[in-house]
Amino acid sequence: MEASIAAVRADVAKLHGELVRYGLVVWTGGNVSGRVPGADLFVIKPSGVSYDDLAPENMILCDLDGNVVPGSEGSERSPSSDTAAHAYVYRHMPEVGGVVHTHSTFAVAWAARGEEIPCVITAMADEFGGPIPVGPFAIIGDDSIGRGIVETLTGHRSRAVLMQNHGPFTIGVSAKDAVKAAVMVEDVARTVHHAREAGPLIPIPQEAIDSLYHRYQNVYGQSSDERREGEK
Amino acid sequence: MEASIAAVRADVAKLHGELVRYGLVVWTGGNVSGRVPGADLFVIKPSGVSYDDLAPENMILCDLDGNVVPGSEGSERSPSSDTAAHAYVYRHMPEVGGVVHTHSTFAVAWAARGEEIPCVITAMADEFGGPIPVGPFAIIGDDSIGRGIVETLTGHRSRAVLMQNHGPFTIGVSAKDAVKAAVMVEDVARTVHHAREAGPLIPIPQEAIDSLYHRYQNVYGQSSDERREGEK
Amino acid sequence: MEASIAAVRADVAKLHGELVRYGLVVWTGGNVSGRVPGADLFVIKPSGVSYDDLAPENMILCDLDGNVVPGSEGSERSPSSDTAAHAYVYRHMPEVGGVVHTHSTFAVAWAARGEEIPCVITAMADEFGGPIPVGPFAIIGDDSIGRGIVETLTGHRSRAVLMQNHGPFTIGVSAKDAVKAAVMVEDVARTVHHAREAGPLIPIPQEAIDSLYHRYQNVYGQSSDERREGEK
Amino acid sequence: MEASIAAVRADVAKLHGELVRYGLVVWTGGNVSGRVPGADLFVIKPSGVSYDDLAPENMILCDLDGNVVPGSEGSERSPSSDTAAHAYVYRHMPEVGGVVHTHSTFAVAWAARGEEIPCVITAMADEFGGPIPVGPFAIIGDDSIGRGIVETLTGHRSRAVLMQNHGPFTIGVSAKDAVKAAVMVEDVARTVHHAREAGPLIPIPQEAIDSLYHRYQNVYGQSSDERREGEK
Repeated sequence: MEASIAAVRADVAKLHGELVRYGLVVWTGGNVSGRVPGADLFVIKPSGVSYDDLAPENMILCDLDGNVVPGSEGSERSPSSDTAAHAYVYRHMPEVGGVVHTHSTFAVAWAARGEEIPCVITAMADEFGGPIPVGPFAIIGDDSIGRGIVETLTGHRSRAVLMQNHGPFTIGVSAKDAVKAAVMVEDVARTVHHAREAGPLIPIPQEAIDSLYHRYQNVYGQSSDERREGEK
Repeated sequence: MEASIAAVRADVAKLHGELVRYGLVVWTGGNVSGRVPGADLFVIKPSGVSYDDLAPENMILCDLDGNVVPGSEGSERSPSSDTAAHAYVYRHMPEVGGVVHTHSTFAVAWAARGEEIPCVITAMADEFGGPIPVGPFAIIGDDSIGRGIVETLTGHRSRAVLMQNHGPFTIGVSAKDAVKAAVMVEDVARTVHHAREAGPLIPIPQEAIDSLYHRYQNVYGQSSDERREGEK
Repeated sequence: MEASIAAVRADVAKLHGELVRYGLVVWTGGNVSGRVPGADLFVIKPSGVSYDDLAPENMILCDLDGNVVPGSEGSERSPSSDTAAHAYVYRHMPEVGGVVHTHSTFAVAWAARGEEIPCVITAMADEFGGPIPVGPFAIIGDDSIGRGIVETLTGHRSRAVLMQNHGPFTIGVSAKDAVKAAVMVEDVARTVHHAREAGPLIPIPQEAIDSLYHRYQNVYGQSSDERREGEK
Repeated sequence: MEASIAAVRADVAKLHGELVRYGLVVWTGGNVSGRVPGADLFVIKPSGVSYDDLAPENMILCDLDGNVVPGSEGSERSPSSDTAAHAYVYRHMPEVGGVVHTHSTFAVAWAARGEEIPCVITAMADEFGGPIPVGPFAIIGDDSIGRGIVETLTGHRSRAVLMQNHGPFTIGVSAKDAVKAAVMVEDVARTVHHAREAGPLIPIPQEAIDSLYHRYQNVYGQSSDERREGEK
């Protein structure tokens, strides 16, 4: 178990670098978490620490109620202010291995209008299997953010939800998969935004969306492990 | 006092790197200053020096009238051309520990229309507690810029003001806090700009704005010191 | 032949770095391939491998039917999911030495509207000799993408095609030339997008387009080798 | 004279890095030149060489007719294809010490509409003293580009001209000053583009523009040398 926790700490710490690389976050905003396999635990970013200073040892270990595990490494710090939402997702979606939240520009722009992103590019059909849905307006302080994420994404192909007036939350089979979804949701949010600025978009027929999605989920990548995390 | 001045020099020199990192400045534009605790002094960027060359020893020490302290390190150089505006703020707002000015793209875009940024995203409610206000048109040469900043921000939750046709000035409890505000004001200026390009925005109810703002100011971060400078 | 293959592996691996440098790709998306001179072979990116990890030894050697050459270095991995489209181009366009595919933002935006990019800037006349055409909607799984590229670009001055709802494919006399076309097509897609946002564009007379194109193809650069890959 | 030429070579080679830093160029596009003080000579970028490979020794020395000086270092290469335009400017504007040309995105966008950039932000009043003018449509092959630059900028406060359908050329008292103008013209082109997307702009009164321009030209910076190259 210790080795497993250490591996998730290292993974989650490193994956935060991808949020910076793709310009999804500013200052100390945004957060990544990863479930510890075989345990009712997850690892999440501390609150208010610069991305330059994130390291495995200052990641925070929490139980599925979002409480910091007493005595665990880094437990003297507060976890991300979004910890309750991550915990809610892990409690209610056992298949989820990672959760990511950002305020990335174009995803937030769609969220501020409460408008789902239509599926008009093949990369979106591959990755999300349809539109990116909008979740309810919910503010920090109770379970309403977590509940909104779970209610919106349960039974939905999309691994990303745009919480209204707030921003994207993404889920995945692993922390890396959720980070990939966070990168891709901003990419499609930006591309479709610009596409629509200049005129009407051509819809993709539903059967083509279905075909692209199923192929990408089942055939791509180097192995089944890499399928969700891998390439288009 | 010397140790205190040296610490502010180091802090202010380093914080300029954040303006570059977040793309808020070009060439030698923009400036950060920080008040020396317990003294009627502040430290500010020299005029016309490349960001590559900024260092603690070429920061300029000024009194609260904006005059360079004779004989102080770096006093052979001219301070930033915005020094008078910074000095005015320090004289009239004793709670302010840092001031930042940039010409960041989207904040200037709102300023060129003289339009305040509406509070339609939760990150903005957290950070600024409402809309980002516009200050008057004022040109360099007398106290009118400083006065415009102080009159607009006094009694306002926002730590950022968009000076009309000019650009953002931000204040904070420290230089770091003011830099964070400069980063966040451009982030929200860009996001709300793009959001509104594509259709009407959903307002956030005033009581939700109030709740987010108070929670963020009072509960967040690792400690009270980090509260204003810390994470969303 | 081995030396020739090794050279193409090194070239193709390195050229992927240009896609990253110019922001044309995210995550593991996008791909470059290069024909092996004097052989019915080409080298392409593996599927689902991070850009950080691309190296000559993990590039994949394929025949012109898109099959991995058994026993060749890296042949234990799967090639890019777009390999069939690259292979189709090499089979049907013998003058093509390189193919590139990306989902770069503004090129995809035009593709999502199925709209060709008009030739209103001289850099576009130089490089592409006219508008950037749109290819048909086609999904992965048969030859339809490759056929769409070949049918659109055969007899066309442009080395770039915007596949509808999908994104740009570019060709060139070499992999480097195709990468240059991928960089330039996004540059002109972005510039013309923004230009048209603010009002009507001034057309360039056809005879001026012809003159610019012919001059650039025949006079520029340090030598004939560098002509297509070289500078504007 | 040799020392003077060597200094200009080093300066011009290094300044090209600023075009990359500020995202004004892609691939091998764009060019900087600098006049050799006290001689009828200037130094310019070679044609078709990657920005990674630019160095003092491959810069090209030309006379004021744009001919490469035979036997000079690097003279085996071709100079930038825009050399004739640079040479024309040096011949006809003796006060000009540097010329820069780019295809930077937003400056080209205004150029493609043939629309001058209105002076609605104070940074533009400081730096350019009014609007950025548009020059005529002119194509490579005779003196028409150089003539268009000179006719537009002679007697104009602006150091930048947007050549219609082509892009910006900037001039300065030195190569560094012209590079600064290239950086600033893209910055204001982008800012004013976005500002106007969202509604009408507030004009700056002419007397305020005049006051800002005169102050910036005469009072700013650390010394008279740094005045034009220095900070806002």
